Amino acid sequence: MTEPTPAPFTADDFAARMRRAARSAADAGLAGLVVTPGPDLRYLTGYLPVAITERLTMLVIPAEGDPSLVVPKIERPDAERAVAAPILRLVDWMDGEDPYAAAAPLLPPGRYAMSDSAWAMHLLGLQDRLATTSYVSMTTALPMLRAVKDADELERLAAAGAAADATYGEILGVRFAGRTEAEVAADLAAGLVAHGHSQVDFTVVGSGPNGANPHHEQGDRVIEEGDMVVLDFGGLKHGYGSDTTRTVHVGEPTDEERAVHELVVRAQQAGFEAVRPGVPCQEIDRVARAVITEAGYGEYFIHRVGHGIGLTTHEPPYMVEGEETPLEPGMCFSIEPGVYLPGRFGVRIEDIVTVTADGGRRLNSTPHEMAIVH
Amino acid sequence: MTEPTPAPFTADDFAARMRRAARSAADAGLAGLVVTPGPDLRYLTGYLPVAITERLTMLVIPAEGDPSLVVPKIERPDAERAVAAPILRLVDWMDGEDPYAAAAPLLPPGRYAMSDSAWAMHLLGLQDRLATTSYVSMTTALPMLRAVKDADELERLAAAGAAADATYGEILGVRFAGRTEAEVAADLAAGLVAHGHSQVDFTVVGSGPNGANPHHEQGDRVIEEGDMVVLDFGGLKHGYGSDTTRTVHVGEPTDEERAVHELVVRAQQAGFEAVRPGVPCQEIDRVARAVITEAGYGEYFIHRVGHGIGLTTHEPPYMVEGEETPLEPGMCFSIEPGVYLPGRFGVRIEDIVTVTADGGRRLNSTPHEMAIVH
Repeated sequence: MTEPTPAPFTADDFAARMRRAARSAADAGLAGLVVTPGPDLRYLTGYLPVAITERLTMLVIPAEGDPSLVVPKIERPDAERAVAAPILRLVDWMDGEDPYAAAAPLLPPGRYAMSDSAWAMHLLGLQDRLATTSYVSMTTALPMLRAVKDADELERLAAAGAAADATYGEILGVRFAGRTEAEVAADLAAGLVAHGHSQVDFTVVGSGPNGANPHHEQGDRVIEEGDMVVLDFGGLKHGYGSDTTRTVHVGEPTDEERAVHELVVRAQQAGFEAVRPGVPCQEIDRVARAVITEAGYGEYFIHRVGHGIGLTTHEPPYMVEGEETPLEPGMCFSIEPGVYLPGRFGVRIEDIVTVTADGGRRLNSTPHEMAIVH
Repeated sequence: MTEPTPAPFTADDFAARMRRAARSAADAGLAGLVVTPGPDLRYLTGYLPVAITERLTMLVIPAEGDPSLVVPKIERPDAERAVAAPILRLVDWMDGEDPYAAAAPLLPPGRYAMSDSAWAMHLLGLQDRLATTSYVSMTTALPMLRAVKDADELERLAAAGAAADATYGEILGVRFAGRTEAEVAADLAAGLVAHGHSQVDFTVVGSGPNGANPHHEQGDRVIEEGDMVVLDFGGLKHGYGSDTTRTVHVGEPTDEERAVHELVVRAQQAGFEAVRPGVPCQEIDRVARAVITEAGYGEYFIHRVGHGIGLTTHEPPYMVEGEETPLEPGMCFSIEPGVYLPGRFGVRIEDIVTVTADGGRRLNSTPHEMAIVH
């Protein structure tokens, strides 16, 4: 049985997103948005150039007026086929011409929000040519551009989460002891693809001491009886992200391993229970962190508790100290506390959570208790 | 029979590259280089973070003094395992801290060359915090940072080219007529992988009118008897790029198709014969373009004639009007003239060429004449 593919976003969807972006820019006192290839451009137009190269592609959405897309001439036929092309003015430039000169008439004096991952080369090119313009990063100026997901986006995120959950269910049945992390990681990747992911972004298998490095991916270490194993995996399905972590144990855990695992489960639960509209993002970090700190493990929880997810697996809103943005219904993010004991083992538990009118809803539903694998 | 893997680059190799980069910066009157994850960082340190995210990772190479690498705390263990780690000072910052404040002590007043693809967000963060610094893109300030390849790099580029050539040899034997472009593209991708590529970057199959869009990748069009088909494919093998184009014909070509193909072959040959140390890059474009213009097809050649190749498949030096940098032995780039007749067909012929003491050497060696496929 094949799952249905969600209906593609339409030119009307993109027009509505661009109008909302323009309004947000106006409200923030900006002259507009400057958007380069990547998730912002996909979100606003559905357009993804063949490759992100040194050739300038740039969407300009003025606070007032119609949007334009600057494209290299040789990529114009591709841009013309984008779903949003009918509602965009295309402006092309040819190799050997100055692309910033082509963009200049679209950028009247003022301050513009620019995609975080725009190339510094292009920002410098614009700053150099257009002394009457200035720029601020999207995350600083309009961090919430893509943060509140609509129903169609939530459906995709839920499907991606369900696929990751199915992958986790299957991985519990594979052999761990005597195989390398890389082999188990390959099983995770195959599971994500089998469950409809078009792209696998990460398959962390952190066994024993490797689990104590929160960004360890996987390696040649042979997993042994007695290992704690962090499994953190995700990617894109129908263009939207999955990202979940469970920590399993090969054979019987020690009392300490069990206690640390239960502590992280409690921290994750506490963070989840704090989710509701109006709560500042940093509060989710504080609540989860407090559980770990009170148990004496604070110094071993060395990262923020979460990040937004959508067209990418890391985006605003960030659940981190200092982020005072209030949660809103439709926001989607990870809650993923961890404890990392250097040279020994690590534990992390992660669910994607979306904010509802009166609390939070998990997009991952596999059990948190420590699974015993073999 | 498995090909030997080239010996990995050593900390000494990276130290020499960083010293040369510092010297180039000093010669250009710069205070240093600011390098972010991507090809510049791989070239200078061999380090590639697990993922390129919003978390700041940044190598600072001062014109005078020792290099430092700013890393997120949770990625520090990865950075410590980089080959170049022993010759770098690691400076970490933790989620919730200001990464630009962590970087500030490494950036005394002055002008810095910054990686082209550094995130605009990070450049804006530095500009905001450090009013005594200014930035210029690597391609503007030090375009030749990675342009001259050493013997070990040339060996890798030659191996990547040979793998692409072997792939081309095999594709001539597959069925074209009646299959989709996407199916032939999958054959190309499988061939590159079978010949040792770890990454496939593009597999253009532009049949009939699709060949007239130079950046068409491939689609559902069914290839027919009588089609001209542009095949442009490449990726990375042992970390270095391949990129070659041949244009084949399904069954017998018309006289016009044959004439246009021969014209492009002549233009490619003319560009190649112009290669020698001291010649400005733009001259390669001019020479190849003149052949096409004189034949009356100038308006149908709508892109520059070439781009550098190395750790990426698009990098300086660019063979384009306005680029006056003189060729130097060890530079590697494509020469790829094309003629694109809208709605009808396209022809492109591309080899990678390296500059030698007295001319050029092709890293692709498959025949240029039009192969007839079936």
